[in-house]
Amino acid sequence: MTAADDATARLLVTCPDQPGIISAVSTFLYNHGANITDFDQHSSDQQDGTFFLRLEFQTPDLDCSHEALANNFRNRVASRYGMHWHISAPGAKKRMAILVSRHDHVLMDLLWRVSRGDMPATIPMVISNHDDLRDEVERFGIPYHHIPVNKDNKAEAEARALELLDGQVDVIVLARYMQILSPEFVARHPHRIINIHHSFLPAFVGANPYQQAWDRGVKLIGATSHYVTEDLDQGPIIEQNVQRVSHRHSAAELRGLGQDVERQVMLRAVRWHLEDRIIVDGNKTVVFVK
Amino acid sequence: MTAADDATARLLVTCPDQPGIISAVSTFLYNHGANITDFDQHSSDQQDGTFFLRLEFQTPDLDCSHEALANNFRNRVASRYGMHWHISAPGAKKRMAILVSRHDHVLMDLLWRVSRGDMPATIPMVISNHDDLRDEVERFGIPYHHIPVNKDNKAEAEARALELLDGQVDVIVLARYMQILSPEFVARHPHRIINIHHSFLPAFVGANPYQQAWDRGVKLIGATSHYVTEDLDQGPIIEQNVQRVSHRHSAAELRGLGQDVERQVMLRAVRWHLEDRIIVDGNKTVVFVK
Amino acid sequence: MTAADDATARLLVTCPDQPGIISAVSTFLYNHGANITDFDQHSSDQQDGTFFLRLEFQTPDLDCSHEALANNFRNRVASRYGMHWHISAPGAKKRMAILVSRHDHVLMDLLWRVSRGDMPATIPMVISNHDDLRDEVERFGIPYHHIPVNKDNKAEAEARALELLDGQVDVIVLARYMQILSPEFVARHPHRIINIHHSFLPAFVGANPYQQAWDRGVKLIGATSHYVTEDLDQGPIIEQNVQRVSHRHSAAELRGLGQDVERQVMLRAVRWHLEDRIIVDGNKTVVFVK
Amino acid sequence: MTAADDATARLLVTCPDQPGIISAVSTFLYNHGANITDFDQHSSDQQDGTFFLRLEFQTPDLDCSHEALANNFRNRVASRYGMHWHISAPGAKKRMAILVSRHDHVLMDLLWRVSRGDMPATIPMVISNHDDLRDEVERFGIPYHHIPVNKDNKAEAEARALELLDGQVDVIVLARYMQILSPEFVARHPHRIINIHHSFLPAFVGANPYQQAWDRGVKLIGATSHYVTEDLDQGPIIEQNVQRVSHRHSAAELRGLGQDVERQVMLRAVRWHLEDRIIVDGNKTVVFVK
Repeated sequence: MTAADDATARLLVTCPDQPGIISAVSTFLYNHGANITDFDQHSSDQQDGTFFLRLEFQTPDLDCSHEALANNFRNRVASRYGMHWHISAPGAKKRMAILVSRHDHVLMDLLWRVSRGDMPATIPMVISNHDDLRDEVERFGIPYHHIPVNKDNKAEAEARALELLDGQVDVIVLARYMQILSPEFVARHPHRIINIHHSFLPAFVGANPYQQAWDRGVKLIGATSHYVTEDLDQGPIIEQNVQRVSHRHSAAELRGLGQDVERQVMLRAVRWHLEDRIIVDGNKTVVFVK
Repeated sequence: MTAADDATARLLVTCPDQPGIISAVSTFLYNHGANITDFDQHSSDQQDGTFFLRLEFQTPDLDCSHEALANNFRNRVASRYGMHWHISAPGAKKRMAILVSRHDHVLMDLLWRVSRGDMPATIPMVISNHDDLRDEVERFGIPYHHIPVNKDNKAEAEARALELLDGQVDVIVLARYMQILSPEFVARHPHRIINIHHSFLPAFVGANPYQQAWDRGVKLIGATSHYVTEDLDQGPIIEQNVQRVSHRHSAAELRGLGQDVERQVMLRAVRWHLEDRIIVDGNKTVVFVK
Repeated sequence: MTAADDATARLLVTCPDQPGIISAVSTFLYNHGANITDFDQHSSDQQDGTFFLRLEFQTPDLDCSHEALANNFRNRVASRYGMHWHISAPGAKKRMAILVSRHDHVLMDLLWRVSRGDMPATIPMVISNHDDLRDEVERFGIPYHHIPVNKDNKAEAEARALELLDGQVDVIVLARYMQILSPEFVARHPHRIINIHHSFLPAFVGANPYQQAWDRGVKLIGATSHYVTEDLDQGPIIEQNVQRVSHRHSAAELRGLGQDVERQVMLRAVRWHLEDRIIVDGNKTVVFVK
Repeated sequence: MTAADDATARLLVTCPDQPGIISAVSTFLYNHGANITDFDQHSSDQQDGTFFLRLEFQTPDLDCSHEALANNFRNRVASRYGMHWHISAPGAKKRMAILVSRHDHVLMDLLWRVSRGDMPATIPMVISNHDDLRDEVERFGIPYHHIPVNKDNKAEAEARALELLDGQVDVIVLARYMQILSPEFVARHPHRIINIHHSFLPAFVGANPYQQAWDRGVKLIGATSHYVTEDLDQGPIIEQNVQRVSHRHSAAELRGLGQDVERQVMLRAVRWHLEDRIIVDGNKTVVFVK
């Protein structure tokens, strides 16, 4: 719900767990005039586990520049504990590319929310393998790139997309993009591509999950947002939700009902990513939800 | 929620769909002085579908005996439309056997609710492959049969259970019974054995679903109640529900959280079966929920 | 989920309960070649209750015109049982006016869904007391009427709105319309005005429900869609839903989180109204949900 | 889900917010050999707010006794920041009294879970104004005190209960205790009496909430657990949940459906209290949920 504001910075940390980390980090920040206003932490195991940390701090009384703070943190804290870490600057918004085919329900919701300031992002581009949604996107003043894909030009099309994306984006959202990305593409954006799968994973992987769900006679349908890895539908799950259905619903009606769940699950994943709330832990996620 | 009362009968019907069925059934009942007080129906398809019907009717002003009503229905309505049908007598309670191993949370809830009159059933017996829960069960005045099962005596043990059950029960509830029933056993009680699987089927079939769920990093865990068929975990699903979890929960904690969902999902399935709300349609169920 | 199609008609009935109604209605339809494909019914009480019925029937084999069917139904069935009833013609779409102030989240969702054919309605007009949303609405080719309201011209403004609406609409949706309608206005459209209240009624009636909810420290916030009557926030409830919140959320964040619930609850109410699924029963509703 | 174990201690803190608290607390613990394994915190406001903290720490490598640690914490940290604080000893279980009238569904669930070790508590006594549930309680080896209450002996009865409770209990659970406690009684156990109200507060305060809910025609019923204060049904809310209902349910059926929600909401509140997860903030609660 909170957009990035101009005085709040965020620190994310992953490192081998050991006593003293919280003391070291919090004392470091305190000594530099940073006031911690939100603090969340997780230890994956009491023995030899991994330590995960997300905190927000206020920067108005900082005794040095943002860059100096980061440098000092690296030298005095991060290196001692073997940390992977990231400090996001106050007010920084992530750049989010959207890839889409023809379904517009997730796309439109994202465009809307970003345009209203309801999500801390900018959208430098939308890329689609169809030209259908151009008008809808350009109305928001966002560049729309139509890159047709067929079985013969797949590698080329991906190369063109990668070229557009290279260095321009912090996160890529597949808002019902009906093409499978190559391992090479994925490797260029590790843990930065968010997909929505229209089932409650790991049930119903692959094509046509609503038809599969209808065939099996389930009483709840679901949707799953996850980071894309090279194994289709196997990446780290970010969020899931379900919707009750009954014998009265056709497979087509499941599809309709499911769209609202897809949208909801996608919005949460995107928001959490934009707010630096997600840390990937192997093939799982740690999500520091408000 | 409603217990069977002494004036309410129920009719269940399955037959090929065609125009005129509702008119025929409701007129037949009206002419015999039966007052329809609840009526639910489903057509699986507009073309060549199957018609499913459940209705409740009041019997005080019936112009004939319950038996005569059934006979007339067979001759005048059911035969004409090729119906599978069943009329439950007013006040009839189904006889429910419970099979259990060592987990008592589902068992105890069933014993409790039946003993309070909160579920329209009698419990003629509890059968277990362990002796642990004997005292808990006998306190309710219910016979407890301990039939040990090991890899050598499985067929024998099943034969002994079938002998006990034969003709004595209308439904068999596997309240965490940790043995796989043979196809022969299942065939003797088609669509009358209710199992609870501790996952959101079809995800995580087989053993240790909570560990599987933890390994996969899902954000919701679930439970599924279904009729047992000869294919393990593949029978018609009756009810499902889920519970939100996070990265903070260990596999053991998922197991604990899941128990409440298991119990809830099982209770609904059992109640619906006892109230004649479920009709099996191939490998699916039609559930006429209140 | 289902849009009206060209062969499906619907019958809604309310009348004093007595035996024989289902038989009379279903036999009447059968004799005219109407094939019942969905049938739902409710009796408010076993003694001296009210009987409610909704059914869908297929009209291709009807032996008379739609008008003749309605006339015959009136003479042969409805009059005998003292019915309030309505038959909607196959393919008929209700005309829906939307009244809105400045919040566009509910409005846009309605415009979108109708324009996609996802809701069986036409939108003859949008009326607003502000001019802000004109462009958004006119893009869809829908007339936008700006009728400013202030404390001096309220009666006049309402009169102007009534004039626009008179005979042109079947249902009026208050998509966050921040003006209280006079009893006279409401009386002109009884059970045809749908409002969304941003709380779980009857908790937090009146202004600023999110602030009230925050002050009270509730753990769930809600939204309620209801028909407007002359008593503010007291009309028959159509649908409600809730969203979990915690001590971490400010009143402003409750407002943000609540918008999704408002939208969802409003969409369901509107859809059900358009599909003739709601019958008002005193100050309550009977909702025949799929 | 987690029971207290023998090496995990917990610290709860409430104090005026200011920079440096996390650093001070975590460094203090680190210096004494305490390893923080769970840490949750909340600031009620960025300006002049209140700071709330809950943390778990491992004690095997502590360099002093539990008492010395507490003393040092008081002198070196708590006094400097004006803290209200509490350190629970490793393995400590709270003593929980249960007050009940005749409804046993919440009572039995508590007895069961404590007896299985599923909740970190002991139950020194059950007090009831009726004698009905004596056998059920004594089976668990728990003393049952029958203190009849009528309009003439209310003060006396309370005095007797207070005498029994005095110094013997850490928390009092009203498991459907149908008597209103006097302000004097409540004042003796501030924020230590947990009640369940069978509605979604603040809707339907007072008697017969299910009948009130039915009369209003709500589409969800709820239950609320809260700390008892001298204002009936107005104390700080701990947890709430809801259950979907429809026009088909009678007021009696709402009562039946509601019992499961009541039980669930009560169990969560009790568990969280036992695990020191709740801090009262004025008339609200901060709940550090796992």
